[in-house]
Amino acid sequence: MFERVRVVGRGRVGTAVKERLRERQVALGDDGADLVLLCVPDPAIRERAAVVPPGPWIAHVSGATSLRALDPHVRRFGLHPLQTFTRARGPEQLDGAWAAVTAESPDARARGFWLAEVLGLRPFEVRDELRVLYHAGAVIASNYLVTLYRSASRLLETAGAPPEALIPLMRRTIDNGFELTGPIARGDWATVQAHLAEISRRAPELEEMYRALATVTAG
Amino acid sequence: MFERVRVVGRGRVGTAVKERLRERQVALGDDGADLVLLCVPDPAIRERAAVVPPGPWIAHVSGATSLRALDPHVRRFGLHPLQTFTRARGPEQLDGAWAAVTAESPDARARGFWLAEVLGLRPFEVRDELRVLYHAGAVIASNYLVTLYRSASRLLETAGAPPEALIPLMRRTIDNGFELTGPIARGDWATVQAHLAEISRRAPELEEMYRALATVTAG
Repeated sequence: MFERVRVVGRGRVGTAVKERLRERQVALGDDGADLVLLCVPDPAIRERAAVVPPGPWIAHVSGATSLRALDPHVRRFGLHPLQTFTRARGPEQLDGAWAAVTAESPDARARGFWLAEVLGLRPFEVRDELRVLYHAGAVIASNYLVTLYRSASRLLETAGAPPEALIPLMRRTIDNGFELTGPIARGDWATVQAHLAEISRRAPELEEMYRALATVTAG
Repeated sequence: MFERVRVVGRGRVGTAVKERLRERQVALGDDGADLVLLCVPDPAIRERAAVVPPGPWIAHVSGATSLRALDPHVRRFGLHPLQTFTRARGPEQLDGAWAAVTAESPDARARGFWLAEVLGLRPFEVRDELRVLYHAGAVIASNYLVTLYRSASRLLETAGAPPEALIPLMRRTIDNGFELTGPIARGDWATVQAHLAEISRRAPELEEMYRALATVTAG
């Protein structure tokens, strides 16, 4: 559906996307591009879009940013790969991930889905006004998973235990379909209270987080 | 180091442990056991230990419980498999997991390590007075990972997105060595504030948790 794509941005996502398009024999380059794909930080989207001459389609890869940031362009969509990227990997990190496509017309939707599939992503649609909520979910699942690991590691280290011992546990928690085990699943609030007492004594910076997570878990 | 083990308890852990011991040709049974291994809920450990006649070694598999719960026995240790268990799997779910061993003598420590290795676990030592802190870390890493997935799923569903799209993201977050990406890593507090505003409007029961996690992440 696109003949030539101009990828703007050389960050983690821009680099992986550009390499994947090259692998898929999609022409890249500035001249005559019928899609300009902005892979730039969220706060830069508006100004980068504003200087793109009218004509081609335009899209961004941000999770939380409204399509309004692409004004004054109207042939536009958003495509957010629901994945965490590292420079240590190549375009294969797109494989198997999903992508949130936001569009304002059937044509734009079809183009966003086409691009997602060319990239190796599984597309689903999110309405523009729900992108922020969707993105909050992505941040909870990914960024705060890092926070859980780092927090748990701190407690294990304080207890003299190797933090990497947490990794098979966390992988299996996912493999087991997120089945809840442990004290809250058993209704064992004495253990939860004992945890809180120890955290308050030895890692008080984690107490509020532990308490808030316990509340939602029990919810 | 043990000739015959009596496994008490038919829960998730007790079942996997018993099957693994059978696989490893360790004799099982009540008569003449030189180790009684209590795989029972935490609140039941004390009373089950109290009725074991003196003589054999005794151990429990609880994460947070002190060895004092095994009184009056003195030949004792704790061995907590750092894993989440399901009835849908067999003894292979022990493979690759770690285990926290608590012991009060070199002999007890050697026996706990021996049992861990027979079970397919990688042992490390945790002092009795640090078990609760260690176990709080395990709960944060595993149980609260379930909470993150469930909470993020709720937001994706509200946004019309498929929750299973979070799974490749969460797996890759682990595979990437828990490298932090996303708005907080970029210092993008405008996005964090936008998340909080949407959560407060559409899923207020998650607001305090999101806020506490953001605080620790930025920490």
